[in-house]
Amino acid sequence: MEMAAGLAAVARGFYARGWLLGTSGNLSAVVQREPLRLAMSPSGVDKGELRPEQFLSIDENARIVSAHQGKPSDESLLHLRIVKDRGAGAVLHTHSVWNTILSDQYAAEGGVKITGYEMLKGLQGVRTHEHTEFLPIVENSQDMPALAESVGATLNKHPAAHGFLLRRHGLYSWGKTLAEAKRHIEILEFLLETIGRTSRRSD
Amino acid sequence: MEMAAGLAAVARGFYARGWLLGTSGNLSAVVQREPLRLAMSPSGVDKGELRPEQFLSIDENARIVSAHQGKPSDESLLHLRIVKDRGAGAVLHTHSVWNTILSDQYAAEGGVKITGYEMLKGLQGVRTHEHTEFLPIVENSQDMPALAESVGATLNKHPAAHGFLLRRHGLYSWGKTLAEAKRHIEILEFLLETIGRTSRRSD
Amino acid sequence: MEMAAGLAAVARGFYARGWLLGTSGNLSAVVQREPLRLAMSPSGVDKGELRPEQFLSIDENARIVSAHQGKPSDESLLHLRIVKDRGAGAVLHTHSVWNTILSDQYAAEGGVKITGYEMLKGLQGVRTHEHTEFLPIVENSQDMPALAESVGATLNKHPAAHGFLLRRHGLYSWGKTLAEAKRHIEILEFLLETIGRTSRRSD
Amino acid sequence: MEMAAGLAAVARGFYARGWLLGTSGNLSAVVQREPLRLAMSPSGVDKGELRPEQFLSIDENARIVSAHQGKPSDESLLHLRIVKDRGAGAVLHTHSVWNTILSDQYAAEGGVKITGYEMLKGLQGVRTHEHTEFLPIVENSQDMPALAESVGATLNKHPAAHGFLLRRHGLYSWGKTLAEAKRHIEILEFLLETIGRTSRRSD
Repeated sequence: MEMAAGLAAVARGFYARGWLLGTSGNLSAVVQREPLRLAMSPSGVDKGELRPEQFLSIDENARIVSAHQGKPSDESLLHLRIVKDRGAGAVLHTHSVWNTILSDQYAAEGGVKITGYEMLKGLQGVRTHEHTEFLPIVENSQDMPALAESVGATLNKHPAAHGFLLRRHGLYSWGKTLAEAKRHIEILEFLLETIGRTSRRSD
Repeated sequence: MEMAAGLAAVARGFYARGWLLGTSGNLSAVVQREPLRLAMSPSGVDKGELRPEQFLSIDENARIVSAHQGKPSDESLLHLRIVKDRGAGAVLHTHSVWNTILSDQYAAEGGVKITGYEMLKGLQGVRTHEHTEFLPIVENSQDMPALAESVGATLNKHPAAHGFLLRRHGLYSWGKTLAEAKRHIEILEFLLETIGRTSRRSD
Repeated sequence: MEMAAGLAAVARGFYARGWLLGTSGNLSAVVQREPLRLAMSPSGVDKGELRPEQFLSIDENARIVSAHQGKPSDESLLHLRIVKDRGAGAVLHTHSVWNTILSDQYAAEGGVKITGYEMLKGLQGVRTHEHTEFLPIVENSQDMPALAESVGATLNKHPAAHGFLLRRHGLYSWGKTLAEAKRHIEILEFLLETIGRTSRRSD
Repeated sequence: MEMAAGLAAVARGFYARGWLLGTSGNLSAVVQREPLRLAMSPSGVDKGELRPEQFLSIDENARIVSAHQGKPSDESLLHLRIVKDRGAGAVLHTHSVWNTILSDQYAAEGGVKITGYEMLKGLQGVRTHEHTEFLPIVENSQDMPALAESVGATLNKHPAAHGFLLRRHGLYSWGKTLAEAKRHIEILEFLLETIGRTSRRSD
């Protein structure tokens, strides 16, 4: 419940910034590794009013193991993939205006290259603004098992990436802890907005 | 009163986002179907300070049936039309900068076509981002009975639309429940801002 | 004190929107007409932390008549001029990014013409979106008596104007009541942002 | 602790505006001059949740003298340099989208020239909007002692500057008091956004 309370607080904050409007986005955190138990935000809930007790507990196959009705978000498969492939302790997914715009604008290049910004230093393991972060873009799909495969392949191909974009859909990032995942989302949203507003200037 | 409290909370949230400035916009919800009773926001009230007890109760002819003075908003006729034609349980009307801009920019095309965004999946009945939402634009007018007729004709012509724009005026959306109507407004405002910022890029 | 509490609440709200940053802007309201007593925000105070007891009481010559130290804002002369010439009960002055930009961009035309927006109907006495509001622009100056004269001449020349811009400085609006003045500021800020973002589109 | 409480409140406010996302930025204030004791925000902490007791006390060599673990922010050296060279009582450093963009866009010119805005009058010692503020841009570096030297040289070369930009990094400003430093940041952020949005218009 403590983890769920933390996730709910992050959700309310991101909702206030307009990154989780219209019940979009989802949030998860690892509660237990063996066997895997993930606190997962329910589908279709207003993120400005999300309460800790609404978080589902799911297993490694995205089955609900808590006393909740319904089925978990289809995107649970993506969360699980990230948890397994990256060893993440928390996974956050936002829909912002700027991440939506850039996920389409840079699709032909396969991703957004971000370099030379001090803000990059806030990403785990990055020591200098001279770091180059490549945020890969994955084509959107409603076939979740297939999308989870694409995401897995992308994570494999870009082992240093701290997040990825789903085209015209949104941003995923993660961290060892919830605080780290929140920090990563804030940094990537900041940098995407900065790049979006900058590139427009030189149109 | 519970419905009015919900409407007031939505109003405060939308006001904070700048979608109901200057006492603009209005909000309603069905309290009873037979005979029809609609909880309707009063005219000319600061939406950041709207209190539940200020909501009027009106009948199907927009007459006040609660113990309130004055007359209901002229736009009550539009709310009633939407409630009847769409079977809506709640109707919300916002004035945002982006919906105002796009309602004018796309007027010659008769509406704004929105397609390919994951956000669309939050609209009731939409299953894929490949959905095409056409948000029709109705010419603005101060002749409310005539405007209600235009709106009715537009709803008829676009039976799948989840909302419409009044030109240089604002956005209307609705839902079976207040939560659904709120979700629809947030999604449409998000998509209009996204399209507005994107189309400018390619100017 | 009740009036001062209302002004302080408006100040906190506008500060949150970024319209009164850096102790900029000022707010006043008529407490008594004969002899004139104006509750006036003190100079150089953080508008996000303004408390009712900090409001000065000034007379028709901008002299402090309450038990406060210091001197009132130099711009008190502008507030007094508006109170006298327009019969205003409250005067509000904001510094927003958009009003600053447009006050410069439209200076050569002498003002910003706003027409065709439903939002205009929220301005006192306006009945239709077909109304044309002309928001005159006054050249900025540090000579306050001279600036008060310019403002007086502008108010005379544009008797229907609901506000004016000081070039590269900010927006003034007013109303019979504080609620009306607040509504006018919100409407004019909304319309200036809308016009600012629209005109850029057609660059 | 009172000073730390003030710094924490400023941090939460700036975080809400998006100027301290992702644990970026830092804040300090002089608690004692002889010997120098600076209350310094800890490194890597969420600025939306910063608590007074988390502030470190450091000496003139950036050594922690309070009962805190770890090491202070590398940028403590910049804070100390500003405190010494400018006699500042508080130093604030923000990462906003607009300061990041302009710190790069104007790098070839060595800084951003700001003139003709009323907002400038809120900067300490400025009496007229005709003032010209030159905000120098310092090339970013991870070599903090070297960067402190560059900053020192820049402060020397521009004795009238109320702040400076680190390229693609952020804004530093300061004041005799925390209130003055906060005011300066708000004014400079406002002016940078205004210039950023204006210059784009004339692209």
